[in-house]
Amino acid sequence: MSAKTDWLKILIRCRDNVKAKIRPYLESATAQQPVLGTGAGGDPMKPVDLAAENAIVEVLEQNLSAFTLVSEESGVKEFGANPAQCYVTVDPIDGTTNLVRRLPFYATSIAVSTLPVLSTVFAALVTDLFHDTTYTAMEGKGAYRDGKKINPSPRTSLEDAVIGLDLNSYKVKAIAPRLSDLIEKTGHIRHFGANALELCYVAEGLTDAFVDIRGKLRVTDLAAGYLILKEAGGVITTPEGLALATALDPMQKIKFIASGNEQLHKQILGLVS
Amino acid sequence: MSAKTDWLKILIRCRDNVKAKIRPYLESATAQQPVLGTGAGGDPMKPVDLAAENAIVEVLEQNLSAFTLVSEESGVKEFGANPAQCYVTVDPIDGTTNLVRRLPFYATSIAVSTLPVLSTVFAALVTDLFHDTTYTAMEGKGAYRDGKKINPSPRTSLEDAVIGLDLNSYKVKAIAPRLSDLIEKTGHIRHFGANALELCYVAEGLTDAFVDIRGKLRVTDLAAGYLILKEAGGVITTPEGLALATALDPMQKIKFIASGNEQLHKQILGLVS
Repeated sequence: MSAKTDWLKILIRCRDNVKAKIRPYLESATAQQPVLGTGAGGDPMKPVDLAAENAIVEVLEQNLSAFTLVSEESGVKEFGANPAQCYVTVDPIDGTTNLVRRLPFYATSIAVSTLPVLSTVFAALVTDLFHDTTYTAMEGKGAYRDGKKINPSPRTSLEDAVIGLDLNSYKVKAIAPRLSDLIEKTGHIRHFGANALELCYVAEGLTDAFVDIRGKLRVTDLAAGYLILKEAGGVITTPEGLALATALDPMQKIKFIASGNEQLHKQILGLVS
Repeated sequence: MSAKTDWLKILIRCRDNVKAKIRPYLESATAQQPVLGTGAGGDPMKPVDLAAENAIVEVLEQNLSAFTLVSEESGVKEFGANPAQCYVTVDPIDGTTNLVRRLPFYATSIAVSTLPVLSTVFAALVTDLFHDTTYTAMEGKGAYRDGKKINPSPRTSLEDAVIGLDLNSYKVKAIAPRLSDLIEKTGHIRHFGANALELCYVAEGLTDAFVDIRGKLRVTDLAAGYLILKEAGGVITTPEGLALATALDPMQKIKFIASGNEQLHKQILGLVS
């Protein structure tokens, strides 16, 4: 990896290759797609997930002398002679269930870091594959949607807010008491089913916050959206209000609250803690 | 109204006029749009809601000698010398919050009935205004998406199911105990925020069920999706498993469970009752 590596260019090439390689699966997408086993993150892996991962790895190998892949699907894989020079954390398809069902909401998520640690992510891309819009961020340089700078919502009233909430859990009874106050006070609850993209919606101000306190989300799903949200000016912490200090590992699960601004964030923290 | 009235043609003309008339609002859509007061259904009315309603009424007046409008926005309005000859129930924009926020899920919903009673709806249209896809149904003739026949999902396993669930309520604590078993047993919970469209997702098999037991949804939001789902072959009842016997009135609220098939429906009824 040279100091001059143009990461955005590489990430965009990854995206373009994903789009090309998954096209056959989109045209024939049905719920009957065979499952290829279980991905490193524990979810059933579909052929379209694997095709997207292969597309990303192909571009990375063409553009980098060495790297460590941290993938929801294949786990940790080292490439080249000095694989610790950078870490590329990917969720090849975030929202595979939506894609297979033809629900128009799924994404590719790629984050680059100096260490296998979330706080060192310095380049990120999330592409909404259905609507073909791309969110990117480089550390210290802001966040962009299709090249246009984005900012989160300044809205501070929960009553007017649209908040994404992931409830998908076999243990919902354990978290329901912490969420019911938030749901009651929030004007509009949503869950579109692709968490990486829903973080970008907060970054862009389409929604005001995104809350996932299940402890089920993999850090691979969050790594790119994390930087995009922070670079846009949003806030993301643990449900206790602490910085997210998490290893980038396909098995690592994470709980978080992401908000457009500090004032709204404090209200949400107060309700769920 | 002649016996030969081509209802599908009229509904399509309504849709096309809505699309034309709301375009200026989409281009300038911001959360800062002024609120025009409260619609008949009790929600804040936005200029885009009113523009969509006016577009529908304009087409109805051009094509019908008389009708009664039942609108979420303007309430009940009679047109022509014999307004009881048919009832047109409309939610001009279902998902206005999404539209204003540029979240890509909002729809126009129009249902035609012989009486101001849900069970007499015989023609229906729901258009996904963002993705420009249109669902239609005529009583006894099946349901269609962009002219292609649709069928609901045959999936009977909750674990594999994608279920839409509307939780937006200031009384979520009252309904949470009835929903937590369903959430725990269901593979994938979603809420896209446009209930008319989410009923059509069940009709088309993109999702397996849609559950709204809040008692907050207006029948104006449901009337068209109700026929589309039934004509597709899906099942819709009260949470107690009874037929929906409801007046078409902008103030009328409704609780319901809609499923792709009887077997899944029975499981959901068993969990929420």
